[in-house]
Amino acid sequence: MTFLEKLEAARIRQDSMLCIGLDTDWRALPDFMHKEENPVLAFNRAIIDATKDIACAYKLNVAYYEAYGEGGIYAMHRTLSRIPSHIITIADVKRNDIGKTCDQYAFTYQDYFGFDAMTVNPLMGYDSVEPFLHHEDRGVFLLGLTSNPGAQDFEYLELKNGKRLYEEITDHVREWNKPKKNCGLVVGATKPAELAALRARARELPFLIPGVGAQGGSLEAVLQANAGGAALINVSRAIANASREPDFAEAAAKVAEKIVEEMRAAAMAA
Amino acid sequence: MTFLEKLEAARIRQDSMLCIGLDTDWRALPDFMHKEENPVLAFNRAIIDATKDIACAYKLNVAYYEAYGEGGIYAMHRTLSRIPSHIITIADVKRNDIGKTCDQYAFTYQDYFGFDAMTVNPLMGYDSVEPFLHHEDRGVFLLGLTSNPGAQDFEYLELKNGKRLYEEITDHVREWNKPKKNCGLVVGATKPAELAALRARARELPFLIPGVGAQGGSLEAVLQANAGGAALINVSRAIANASREPDFAEAAAKVAEKIVEEMRAAAMAA
Repeated sequence: MTFLEKLEAARIRQDSMLCIGLDTDWRALPDFMHKEENPVLAFNRAIIDATKDIACAYKLNVAYYEAYGEGGIYAMHRTLSRIPSHIITIADVKRNDIGKTCDQYAFTYQDYFGFDAMTVNPLMGYDSVEPFLHHEDRGVFLLGLTSNPGAQDFEYLELKNGKRLYEEITDHVREWNKPKKNCGLVVGATKPAELAALRARARELPFLIPGVGAQGGSLEAVLQANAGGAALINVSRAIANASREPDFAEAAAKVAEKIVEEMRAAAMAA
Repeated sequence: MTFLEKLEAARIRQDSMLCIGLDTDWRALPDFMHKEENPVLAFNRAIIDATKDIACAYKLNVAYYEAYGEGGIYAMHRTLSRIPSHIITIADVKRNDIGKTCDQYAFTYQDYFGFDAMTVNPLMGYDSVEPFLHHEDRGVFLLGLTSNPGAQDFEYLELKNGKRLYEEITDHVREWNKPKKNCGLVVGATKPAELAALRARARELPFLIPGVGAQGGSLEAVLQANAGGAALINVSRAIANASREPDFAEAAAKVAEKIVEEMRAAAMAA
């Protein structure tokens, strides 16, 4: 089964394109969580249990787990084992290095932790990405056009060949995807016009779309721009931080349900 | 004290520009190391003890420690505490993400682990780098021109403004360096002509130069191209894997000494 097929199976079973970001910041947790032995793990488990019927994927930004050394990596590892196997798990790590080093990163996130997919920064080119492409059932989302203001500094640069850098990157990703159909593209929700153009440019690639909610992206605009392409739309803080009271997990589920209903309505209308 | 001053103090005290890469692959360790309780840690301690009189810096590529989850992070943490405080420690992590996430990475490597410097991938632009620049005594080495073949895919691209992408990145790094003098550039040893041109373009930036030895870069060519600029020249496998016998630490020290002697002779001749 290719990653694209696995993604499609999850989307159909959950009737959802929602990816829930578990970027759990220990320092920002509500006070009452700190009585738990492992507050990050307890928080994640509650969010997963409350949303696992409508989430198509969970994305763990590994930065938040690395920030507490050994204990944080333990929390990440145990969080993963709480997620049902038919739901996609994504390591948001944005790694990039020489090939020999990327062999290590691929081992870590694909084999040791067993994530279904991971994010990779493409700056160093093909041989820095190839080590992640060995398994057809493991997805690799390359940074295409990111949601932050700094995307202007390099990603938007005009090349001598007439393309923008992010378009050139997209064209390479399309090539890298051909052998095993296991590549995807990260495209920020904050840029719906560019999202629509990239969707037309790379119809076959699944998109991982962050930036809806706290970063200012509009779900409606994203759904329209993506126009039925394979995609995971990620929401992190708007769900996980919906409430800081003991009802935080139910509050998260309510926000998630509202988002998924909007997705379903858009799919019906299309 | 700025990072640049700290680097200069280490260079003078050790009379060395040698950065030793501790990219310790558990699976590739000699058999006799596996009787140790923590083989990676035992190996690193032996290399550090044998080379600490002539190393200007140690660079840990975090990929090799992440590859063993909680246990690998523990080995990294304990390795750091073996390195004398006047020697520069570098977290080779090449991280890049939105600002809020980079706050976490900065906390992890600058505060939690306490590295003197770290490597950062600049693709996502200024707001993805700024969180690493808050402390004048912590160095940030941005990827300029990397040592791998894939550098051709994007880093060498010609821009409409006439520059190559890696030159445009270098010009941004020079700007980012102005407030606190804490930026540097990663420039691969495998490209001495470009290294010489970048040295002329950015005289004020310290360079972290990987790729000597196993990757094929020539020390002589690098020393000539760098022409006395502030730099750390990294050697990993050629030192750490000098022998697979019980004399591995002495063998590593011998290779390191030979390299440092060549550096000192070049400095005398200049």
